[in-house]
Amino acid sequence: MKITPVKGTNDYLPAQAELRNYLQKKICETYEQAGFQRIATPIIEDIENLDKSEGGDNLNLIFKIMKRGEKLKKAIASQNPDNIADMGLRYDLTLPLSRYYANNRASLPHPFKVIQMDRVYRAERPQKGRLREFIQCDIDILGSDSATCEIELIHTTAKALLNIGINNFKVKINDRRILREILLSVGFEEEQLDSVCISFDKLNKIKAEGVEAELIEKGFDKDVIAEFMKLLANAPFTLDYVKEICKDNEYVASLAHIIDTSNALADGKYTAEYDMTLVRGQGYYTGTVFEVESLDFNSSIAGGGRYDNLIGKFLKEQIPAVGFSIGFERIYSILMEKEAYKTEKQKKVVLIYEEDQIADAIRYAEDLRKTYKTALYIKPKKLGKFLNKLEEQGFDGFQVFGRDEEVRMFGE
Amino acid sequence: MKITPVKGTNDYLPAQAELRNYLQKKICETYEQAGFQRIATPIIEDIENLDKSEGGDNLNLIFKIMKRGEKLKKAIASQNPDNIADMGLRYDLTLPLSRYYANNRASLPHPFKVIQMDRVYRAERPQKGRLREFIQCDIDILGSDSATCEIELIHTTAKALLNIGINNFKVKINDRRILREILLSVGFEEEQLDSVCISFDKLNKIKAEGVEAELIEKGFDKDVIAEFMKLLANAPFTLDYVKEICKDNEYVASLAHIIDTSNALADGKYTAEYDMTLVRGQGYYTGTVFEVESLDFNSSIAGGGRYDNLIGKFLKEQIPAVGFSIGFERIYSILMEKEAYKTEKQKKVVLIYEEDQIADAIRYAEDLRKTYKTALYIKPKKLGKFLNKLEEQGFDGFQVFGRDEEVRMFGE
Repeated sequence: MKITPVKGTNDYLPAQAELRNYLQKKICETYEQAGFQRIATPIIEDIENLDKSEGGDNLNLIFKIMKRGEKLKKAIASQNPDNIADMGLRYDLTLPLSRYYANNRASLPHPFKVIQMDRVYRAERPQKGRLREFIQCDIDILGSDSATCEIELIHTTAKALLNIGINNFKVKINDRRILREILLSVGFEEEQLDSVCISFDKLNKIKAEGVEAELIEKGFDKDVIAEFMKLLANAPFTLDYVKEICKDNEYVASLAHIIDTSNALADGKYTAEYDMTLVRGQGYYTGTVFEVESLDFNSSIAGGGRYDNLIGKFLKEQIPAVGFSIGFERIYSILMEKEAYKTEKQKKVVLIYEEDQIADAIRYAEDLRKTYKTALYIKPKKLGKFLNKLEEQGFDGFQVFGRDEEVRMFGE
Repeated sequence: MKITPVKGTNDYLPAQAELRNYLQKKICETYEQAGFQRIATPIIEDIENLDKSEGGDNLNLIFKIMKRGEKLKKAIASQNPDNIADMGLRYDLTLPLSRYYANNRASLPHPFKVIQMDRVYRAERPQKGRLREFIQCDIDILGSDSATCEIELIHTTAKALLNIGINNFKVKINDRRILREILLSVGFEEEQLDSVCISFDKLNKIKAEGVEAELIEKGFDKDVIAEFMKLLANAPFTLDYVKEICKDNEYVASLAHIIDTSNALADGKYTAEYDMTLVRGQGYYTGTVFEVESLDFNSSIAGGGRYDNLIGKFLKEQIPAVGFSIGFERIYSILMEKEAYKTEKQKKVVLIYEEDQIADAIRYAEDLRKTYKTALYIKPKKLGKFLNKLEEQGFDGFQVFGRDEEVRMFGE
């Protein structure tokens, strides 16, 4: 049998699991303190819900679960791969949340402020080094189109990051509706915008030349592309500049309000900035999009946006919604490196020499357990090696039952 | 799109999710206080590992994940359903733990005392009303064949149950090796024992007559069956009686030691009893098996046993192992009914009348958040209905920003 976990997934050692649980607990505390509430949804979803969910590239990365029994036999006989699965593993927490809201809205307050912290799955190609099973930490506000939601999500997410010691970051904000307005202003047509956005999203990766090449390859009007390139080359990319292009646009005013208020609430601990180039991958975003960029690690550590049409797929009416997701795995791998994040040790070992002391030793350990986490072990033959392993996994002191008065630290 | 969760899985409302998280936290505290350590393993496992794992009936309940891309096409063309999956969802936490130990033993202390609290999946037929996605809470000790492990697992599991308010229960204990000895003593043969045990396991459900009928149907010797039935009818089922049948048997002495010590440590809060009829379903148990029976609810709420051969499937050597699993979902459904378990409310709502007060209101709420979990909402049109929903989901007081000095309780 194979002893390694399946590709793209991890086994976590006790010290690693402890840090992961600690980070989730701290993030969740911030969210709960702000009055958001945890829910739980299943990891498996109906395959049609997943397939029709506008998840962008993620739709190609769904792990599908086979039907069972007679239904499976029929499906295989049909030779059509699309018939074989009836469920799949969720690729994010937003689609299950939308279904959940539709299913439970009669029991929920409106707007609903919700925490999700759970596993998601993507069948990434293993050679990319990406995880296929990972944790997402999301807060969402469902049922309100007020810009106060964006302000609160940005404030709360930033506070959660600060609380776990991530502190050199900026929040980048855009509104897809403004981006679309800009693209219209240079001459693209309404029905071309989604495709143009997909290319434009790659600006940081493939630069303006790359975007230009891709747009030409897609066959858009050369004059329009040239106009767009001129704008990209010369535009200062500031919100003031955008205000000029999109005169009296309500989205620009709202975005300015979100950015100004977020900066006021930041108290100088981070900045919120307009970023005309921010698109975000998911197909379901409809308005504001945002991202937290760590300046220490030069990478995105949180992202989100408004998705006013997704819940409507489950209901007869549209329900506005907006969410912000912390990239838990990125943050875990950053903090795992930091010495300061080695777990706070308050774990002791009681060793016994004779098995028949077990009842008395357990009673003795129970007393220590009022103060410390206390493990009980029969003294092994190779004591030094054994204590080293315990120390590596977070224990810091030991004593021998019936012989030591005080707990001794390792190395003493 | 479908708004209900897939069959056999649940959406949990905030108040439900809060109780579930609280119970897991309390159980985990007891385990950690006893020096056990949490790990994490993936929910998906290699399909061969699952198929070859001796999981008994659970092997028929595996959710299988389809291969992807070219491999899937080839597999479908072969028309063989066994080729289509390359992974599956785990049906318990014991198999992944065995793989984990084999994979990570160089980094782990020996013996290894481990906590797992996580989701598992079984494709139960929905009409049975059983969950297809549920939580298991396990502690295991790997790498020791000492009976002190059983004693510690029983003590720690009982303590975890007492700590969450479950207190009228008994621990039933048996050793499959003793049961086999008894079956041999009435005349069954070595190679018949597994099959006889499977029938005998149903004693409580189908009674002695049912077991007899099943054994006859299986074609065993009628005289042997009659001898066995005589024993079932007349035996006092006590450990003293078993000591007589199995003279000088080391397993009987060890079991008596486990039971006596467990009772001594129980301080009268529960009892540990020998139960000759206890078998437990899993194929991988090799020695002691145990179960906690709630006397209030007349149902099994925890179970476990020794599985000395399972890790050996992943390594060239046998590693003794024993584990105890709390039936989290059963306990959750019991406690959900109890009024005492309605969540401790310390959650407040701040209402604002005007959106443009948002920055000041957030600053004000941050101050309250030092004491309470505090949600911020723009006052909705239907205030009464809105506050009712919040109260149902665990909030207990509110105030209007800029108007109330004190937090008011709902209904005041």
